[in-house]
Formats: sequence, C-alpha cells, structure tokens
Amino acid sequence: MNISLEQAEAIIDAAKLKAAELDTKMNICVVDTGANIVAFARMDGAWLGSADIAQKKAKTAVWFTMDTAALSPLVQPGEPLFNIEHSNGGLITFPGGVVIKNSGGDMIGAIGVSGSTVDNDHEVAAAGAASL
Amino acid sequence: MNISLEQAEAIIDAAKLKAAELDTKMNICVVDTGANIVAFARMDGAWLGSADIAQKKAKTAVWFTMDTAALSPLVQPGEPLFNIEHSNGGLITFPGGVVIKNSGGDMIGAIGVSGSTVDNDHEVAAAGAASL
Amino acid sequence: MNISLEQAEAIIDAAKLKAAELDTKMNICVVDTGANIVAFARMDGAWLGSADIAQKKAKTAVWFTMDTAALSPLVQPGEPLFNIEHSNGGLITFPGGVVIKNSGGDMIGAIGVSGSTVDNDHEVAAAGAASL
Amino acid sequence: MNISLEQAEAIIDAAKLKAAELDTKMNICVVDTGANIVAFARMDGAWLGSADIAQKKAKTAVWFTMDTAALSPLVQPGEPLFNIEHSNGGLITFPGGVVIKNSGGDMIGAIGVSGSTVDNDHEVAAAGAASL
Repeated sequence: MNISLEQAEAIIDAAKLKAAELDTKMNICVVDTGANIVAFARMDGAWLGSADIAQKKAKTAVWFTMDTAALSPLVQPGEPLFNIEHSNGGLITFPGGVVIKNSGGDMIGAIGVSGSTVDNDHEVAAAGAASL
Repeated sequence: MNISLEQAEAIIDAAKLKAAELDTKMNICVVDTGANIVAFARMDGAWLGSADIAQKKAKTAVWFTMDTAALSPLVQPGEPLFNIEHSNGGLITFPGGVVIKNSGGDMIGAIGVSGSTVDNDHEVAAAGAASL
Repeated sequence: MNISLEQAEAIIDAAKLKAAELDTKMNICVVDTGANIVAFARMDGAWLGSADIAQKKAKTAVWFTMDTAALSPLVQPGEPLFNIEHSNGGLITFPGGVVIKNSGGDMIGAIGVSGSTVDNDHEVAAAGAASL
Repeated sequence: MNISLEQAEAIIDAAKLKAAELDTKMNICVVDTGANIVAFARMDGAWLGSADIAQKKAKTAVWFTMDTAALSPLVQPGEPLFNIEHSNGGLITFPGGVVIKNSGGDMIGAIGVSGSTVDNDHEVAAAGAASL
C-alpha cells in the first residue's frame, strides 16, 4: 500500500509536463506513507529555496493525510492550528502538497510542488497525483 | 556568472558608506548564486542578532531570485505564502535582502543587510547592490 | 557549468542499473555545484535511513570537491580532520559520494549513494558519475 | 577589549596574503569575544564546505580561549574531551582556529581558517592573528 519508485517517477514526469504547460519551473517531491522521500526533481532554473518547500509540502500532506490547501485556513491567526508550522522540523501549510491515492482510494503517498504561485503549485501537484 | 570575493568586498564597502551616511550600524552579508556565504561584515556596535538575519536575508533573496521586500506582502496572514519562513532552516522575508545583478542583468548573488529599520536596511542593501 | 536535471536523471538511471546488477537497493542523490539537490531516487525496499546519507554524501563531495572516499582516512581518530562531520549540519565521510565532471574535467555536481556496503555504494556512485 | 571591524578586516587581509603565498584558497572568519561573527571572506574557488568550518574554528577558539590545535589531542578516543564536538551546535577541534590577542595579551577575538591542510589552515590563521 506504499508508492513505488516507478510510480513516483511517473508522477514526477506528469508533474513536469504540467509545469511546462504552465510555463513554470518547479521543484517536485514524492514521499511515501511514512513521509519519507521517494523521488525528487528540480527543473532547470527553478528556485533553489523551493526544493525544501516541495519536500515539506509533501511530508505535511502525509503527516495529516490531507492536501496542504486544506490546512491553509486552519493555520491563520485566531484559527485552531495557528503556528502548527513549528512542529516536525517545519511544516509548509499553503497549497502545493497533495495526497496520492491508489485506485481503491487509499493514500499511498503525497506529492509536493513549489516554484510558482501557490495556485500553479497546487495545479501541478494535483496533475501529478491524478496521473497515477 | 558567480560573484567574486573582490566584487563582494567592494559591495560591502559601498554598503558601509551608505550605512554611515544614514547614521546606522549594520550587519552586511553577500552570498553567491548557490546561497553560499562569500563575505560578511558587522559594523562596530551593530546588533548581534542581526548577523544571522543579514545572512538569511541574502540567502532568501537568492533562493527565490527576488528582493525580500517583494516577499513581505505575500507572507502575511491570509496571504498565499503565510509562514513560508519555516522552510530552508529559516527565511527572513522583510526588506533588506537584495538581488545582485551584473551588467547583463543576470543574478550573480545577493546582499542582506540588518541593523536598523527595514527601510534603512533595504536602502543600504540596494546601495551595495547598485555599486557593482 | 552546472548539472542539468536531464543529466542528473540519466546519472540516476545509470546508478540504478548498476545497483540492480549488484543486487542492491540504493538511495541515490545528485546535487549541483552549489550543493543544492537536483534529483533523488529511493529504490523500492532501500533503507530509509540512507536517504539522508545519500544526500549528505553528495553534498560533502561538492563541498570539498573530492570523493568522500578520499576523506575517509583523514577523519579517523588521530588524523587531521577528526570529527569534521560536525560541520555543515552533518557530513558523511565514508565512500559513496563521487564528484561528477563534464568532458572538460570541470566539476558540475556530485552523486551520493547509500544502501549497501560502502564498497557497493561507491561502485554505484562511480558508475553513475561515469555515465555522463 | 573587543575586536573592531577595522581590525578584523586587516586581519583577514593579512590572512589572504599568507594564503596566496602558500598557494591556497581559504575561508577566513573573525569572531569577537562573544564568539559572534565580525567579518568573513571566502576566497574565489575555496571549498564551500570550509565556510562553516572556518566559522566553527573561530568560535571554538573563543569558547575555550585557546587555539583549536590545543584541543585536538584532548578530543581523541579515550581522552578527557572525547566527542566534545557535539556541544554548542558543533565544534571543530582540529588546527586552524587561533586566538587573537591585543598588545596587552588580552584575548579580543579569534580567527578561523579552513580550505587546505590543517597545517596550512593554522599557518594562515596564525599569520592573521599575528598581524594585529
């Protein structure tokens, strides 16, 4: 029930295609259900600072079994999870981390994407996850 | 396409002049395009806590190929990049980190300045970057 | 003079082939000349703890422009660089990190491999680097 | 009784001269009596991984008010300070960190040098400290 490297690489390829389609340069990371890195790619010219963000988005999605976009409203000032980012060595709670599910609907990992607007990041991550 | 030590030291000298002109005491850091430190100076009496901030501002500017002042509005509560500072071992996203470009317009590094108001920090960093 | 993602992925593919030939399961990382991650793959069933080691081996090779195997004798008790591993957030100084050079002999990045004996790790990394 | 930036920069210049004389490329750091960074320079082409080592050597020298070369024998297996490097976020205990004293013999800071053999590192650091 854990993502394979072959699946992870296919997902990254699909994400790269979507990134190119959007004319963006992305850092893309896939982690397994233990939030451990399986595969990673930084497209030429993509922001260096987004490598860590892509990894943290993917891990955050697995840690809480939800897309990071679902966390964003909950971490604002006054909201229940304000400043949860201080846990686990650093979370990223804005869009771009997406849960990867198999055909049975079970989570088998997550993808994190960073390098453009959060809307683009999420779109590329979702395209990767949906390609499975 | 990477900044040299000679260039970095000249930029720090220019930043020190601007800092003195503004009657401020600054920490000044220059990093290369890999976000690795090239040169650093803490003016006598400058805040100790600003040494790390200056370094993080310079790194943040390189990591995202933009001045930190451009990030500030995006990281506020409710904005797309809220709490991005938890990535990369700590970002600084307020003004004072400025991209350094060569005459061809290519980024060759960045300067980070900290020790006064963020307006002064940015002005000193910009003066350093513009001196090239 | 910096490695491209296409080159990094081809190097990882070559390393995977060599790993399979040796009947091993490896974590493989490629970094650029700034020691920033470009691509990563964890083969199915490879040690989780080796993901970080592979990354640190690649970074260590770039940080000191030499294979990690060249560092191993220097870091032993009584030798000149004993406990250098405490720098840079953690080095790995045993074999498995190999410098990647272009046809002109210039370093364009490094590969780090971890998941088996250090001899196997080094052999897989060297095969990856040599495939360029 | 604390080193000034002007003194630190003169010390770095002296160290750079000695480094060039030895045909080496060094990372050079000067810290004050609080072990806080005052000035830093990475010579073109010097090892990236030595930037952190130079800083840690300078800090280690101040933290224990002795040259790092004096610590080296004490940190070996079976010796009293074995693995002291785990403290303070990471010490470097091999040669290259040298205490800087004023004409009255009082410590006013330290210099850390890294980028070549530890003998060369120490010689460059000592030349810097002696230039005051």
